[in-house]
Amino acid sequence: MVKVQIYDTTLRDGAQAVDINLTAEDKLRIAQKLDDLGIDYIEGGWPGSNPTDKRFFEDIQALSLKHSRIAAFGSTHMAKHAAENDPNLKALAASQAPVITIFGKTWDRHAVEALRVEPERNLELIGNSLAWLRPRCKELFFDAEHFFDGFRANRDYAMECLKRAHQAGADVLVLCDTNGGTLPCDVRKICDHVTKALPLARIGIHAHNDTDMAVANSLMAVQAGAVQVQGTVNGFGERCGNANLCSIIPTLELKLKRQALPKGRLHLITETSRFVDEVANRVPFARQPYVGESAFTHKAGVHVAAVAKDSSLYEHVQPEKVGNLRQVVLSDMSGQANILFKAKEYGITLEKGSPEVLEILREIKEKEAVGYEYSASEASFELLMRRALGMTRRYFSLVKYRVLDWKQTGCEDPLAEATVMVQVGGHVEHTAAVGLGPVNALDNSLRKALVRFYPKISEIRLLDFKVRVLNAKTKHDSGTASHVRVLITTGDQTDTWTTVGVSHNIIQASWQALEDAVNYKLVMEDKKKQQGKC
Amino acid sequence: MVKVQIYDTTLRDGAQAVDINLTAEDKLRIAQKLDDLGIDYIEGGWPGSNPTDKRFFEDIQALSLKHSRIAAFGSTHMAKHAAENDPNLKALAASQAPVITIFGKTWDRHAVEALRVEPERNLELIGNSLAWLRPRCKELFFDAEHFFDGFRANRDYAMECLKRAHQAGADVLVLCDTNGGTLPCDVRKICDHVTKALPLARIGIHAHNDTDMAVANSLMAVQAGAVQVQGTVNGFGERCGNANLCSIIPTLELKLKRQALPKGRLHLITETSRFVDEVANRVPFARQPYVGESAFTHKAGVHVAAVAKDSSLYEHVQPEKVGNLRQVVLSDMSGQANILFKAKEYGITLEKGSPEVLEILREIKEKEAVGYEYSASEASFELLMRRALGMTRRYFSLVKYRVLDWKQTGCEDPLAEATVMVQVGGHVEHTAAVGLGPVNALDNSLRKALVRFYPKISEIRLLDFKVRVLNAKTKHDSGTASHVRVLITTGDQTDTWTTVGVSHNIIQASWQALEDAVNYKLVMEDKKKQQGKC
Repeated sequence: MVKVQIYDTTLRDGAQAVDINLTAEDKLRIAQKLDDLGIDYIEGGWPGSNPTDKRFFEDIQALSLKHSRIAAFGSTHMAKHAAENDPNLKALAASQAPVITIFGKTWDRHAVEALRVEPERNLELIGNSLAWLRPRCKELFFDAEHFFDGFRANRDYAMECLKRAHQAGADVLVLCDTNGGTLPCDVRKICDHVTKALPLARIGIHAHNDTDMAVANSLMAVQAGAVQVQGTVNGFGERCGNANLCSIIPTLELKLKRQALPKGRLHLITETSRFVDEVANRVPFARQPYVGESAFTHKAGVHVAAVAKDSSLYEHVQPEKVGNLRQVVLSDMSGQANILFKAKEYGITLEKGSPEVLEILREIKEKEAVGYEYSASEASFELLMRRALGMTRRYFSLVKYRVLDWKQTGCEDPLAEATVMVQVGGHVEHTAAVGLGPVNALDNSLRKALVRFYPKISEIRLLDFKVRVLNAKTKHDSGTASHVRVLITTGDQTDTWTTVGVSHNIIQASWQALEDAVNYKLVMEDKKKQQGKC
Repeated sequence: MVKVQIYDTTLRDGAQAVDINLTAEDKLRIAQKLDDLGIDYIEGGWPGSNPTDKRFFEDIQALSLKHSRIAAFGSTHMAKHAAENDPNLKALAASQAPVITIFGKTWDRHAVEALRVEPERNLELIGNSLAWLRPRCKELFFDAEHFFDGFRANRDYAMECLKRAHQAGADVLVLCDTNGGTLPCDVRKICDHVTKALPLARIGIHAHNDTDMAVANSLMAVQAGAVQVQGTVNGFGERCGNANLCSIIPTLELKLKRQALPKGRLHLITETSRFVDEVANRVPFARQPYVGESAFTHKAGVHVAAVAKDSSLYEHVQPEKVGNLRQVVLSDMSGQANILFKAKEYGITLEKGSPEVLEILREIKEKEAVGYEYSASEASFELLMRRALGMTRRYFSLVKYRVLDWKQTGCEDPLAEATVMVQVGGHVEHTAAVGLGPVNALDNSLRKALVRFYPKISEIRLLDFKVRVLNAKTKHDSGTASHVRVLITTGDQTDTWTTVGVSHNIIQASWQALEDAVNYKLVMEDKKKQQGKC
């Protein structure tokens, strides 16, 4: 069976969702992650249409992707001038993207009412645009916009659009259900018609989820012979979103036995899904098939015993295959298993059922109840474990801090100043620093106070800072009085680590995360010393 | 075409989800709402299995439902004694529910490994349970648990289970994809086999969403002759959830032209979906097909121009048909069309291409380039527009604010205190307030300063506070020095609105959003006055 091409448009169609707002930096990080997963094509955006996408296509060339090819997206040239003079087509060629995807109208009413050109002229736009781009890229795809609606409205015209694109050299004709209203049975019929009428053409599918059918429609098209599936991570996209690649890829590989990713990559799909949500600052959807947090969650009882004996009794696939975890709700044993698993990772030996383990378990449950989240902040988790086991010394302790924000009319940014008083051994150090904001000032001040005692501190750098407002638990606990969770990612020359803090007060939550970030560095240095690495 | 029976199991299978907790009171309110919508069957739970369900079946009889029939759910009787002595079957009969649904094993391995009975004995349990219940209820349904997996593993046995249930008097044989791993093509094949083998039986479908196919599978079964669809509102349920009735019902009626609800009820489905989320205390999923907040939201400028011309060009159905609304949001992709559309909404008349429009467009693009995001903060957008057009007066202006966070070892939360000096007309007001965090303190202090001049301020309440750290745009601009975007949602008795602020400094970003939030309230009050509403 021929491999199915996976074409990701999270960075273009996905980014058109109301609640998704990606910077060029975000897009580059996601592209890197998709390359690790082994996605064949990554559609980066519209070159030249806006500064973000312009920068993406410049900077992506510095990343040396191992598997993925970058695709630039644009429309057929404007009717008022020829292809060779069209600024958009020129921008596409200038983007240096090896793959170019052009979308064109295939529904005659759209040509007339949206594009305001005669249907015949629209056919020329399609043919001329693709013909001009053909020698200017390695691969050329045609997104047949509104194809399914167009086919139902005026079959001959829609088919003629495909023929022109095929003749002009499109490698794949991608049938788009732009409005997302088509049902699987119609997708099947229409794909069959196209493959019969254009036996030499290769077709793809681009589905939207307006009837909750995007995944079913995509797989139906593959079963009808489509060689390319376009979609987004987690189904991001306008309105109801695009076809969800996190559902399509596992079903292709595990159920339809079709290769979609390079061998041995499928288990990366859950972490990819979570990563993209994190970068887009979206709360992951727990019920998401295959990759969701509840996708393999079982309730305690006979059920669980049966799952333990033979998971195929209650699971349609094994969670490990997609890199997800089986969870048993309200089961301390599963909690313990995690702790023992992690301890081993950290080189700590613990005994199942031992008082230490139960103590750590109690503390974690207590912390998670008020909003701490250790899956995304393992450094704080390791520190918690080491403290519970008396495996780390106290490097410093806070006496007090004070953060001041002073805004005066006239000056754009307020003055942010922090003072920190910490005790290190016998000494009390009292320092002050300013910053671009209160947390930055606090961070500068803390490191200034400690560097004299721990010079290695000068090696660390704050790489990322994330804030999530936890949902109000009571009526009082809402708005600006909500709990906030702060995640801080820190790095030195060799490692990066993430720490967490939670409080009503964003400054206090940030302080906790900063404190852990510095402590973790010092713990690592001591570990290295013990291992004689310094 | 025969009407499709809609069987809702939100209160039973839906409530089994880890994150759903319904009281008897909640269940009664939802049942009432489902009756208003015109759902045929409402499965209330397991009578006698727990106090909540026990109370539900008692109290539901006081509610005089206009359309829906209440169903009680339970399993085949225990192997160790006869049907007539089985406490669960007795509880079902005692529930007074006009409809009883019994589930039984149809996968031989499950009979042996989970129930621990011989396959032959399991067939007796099915037959005896249904035969005993038949005279004790108006309608009797059989949920064939794991039917699709069972059919694949041992077709003859799975079919024999159905035959026994049919002979024992089940009105509908509901084929369950309990593990949710079946694909539409297999649902079709297996349903066709069953309808051929049991031409006199009526079949139903109960699908789970573990492959993102629950909706497709349900509709496929209907196309194969199923007369009953079981599912839940918003797809609630264990793991990946059950088939989502909010997607299935509109597709049945609008696309497959099959009646699912009483005439003229479909437009109630959006409010039903939101109501159930509300009662279950779940944040609605914005991308949910048909009923989601973004389901008919248009963002890209090119779309908006066309939608304004003819909505069928970009919408697969009209939002009014399902009681949802069309929305147009703003983004850096937005062109003039969006602005004109919005202005009209705000009751402002603008001319395409006019200097005002171009000025507003320029300002939006400038702001969005540094991280402002108006699609999620329309109140700030309206203020921006009114300011550009000189359509709002200055209610107050900041002289200075100062925010202090003071943390001392020993006390858990730091002290957060804010002072604000604002000028209102000739007066200068200088106030101070504390809060649970610096932003809360600033918020309290600002409103304290203004309420004397604008008593209506006392009506507003902060509902939500969102912080998004924008990823580094330059190498220096990273970590705790990143730009942050703050979104604040505010409400009074009648409206809610969202405002935005962006800065290196989270306090300053929050200040901007707070300032807009208060200004927007004052603008609305003036509008009301002009319209003589006060």
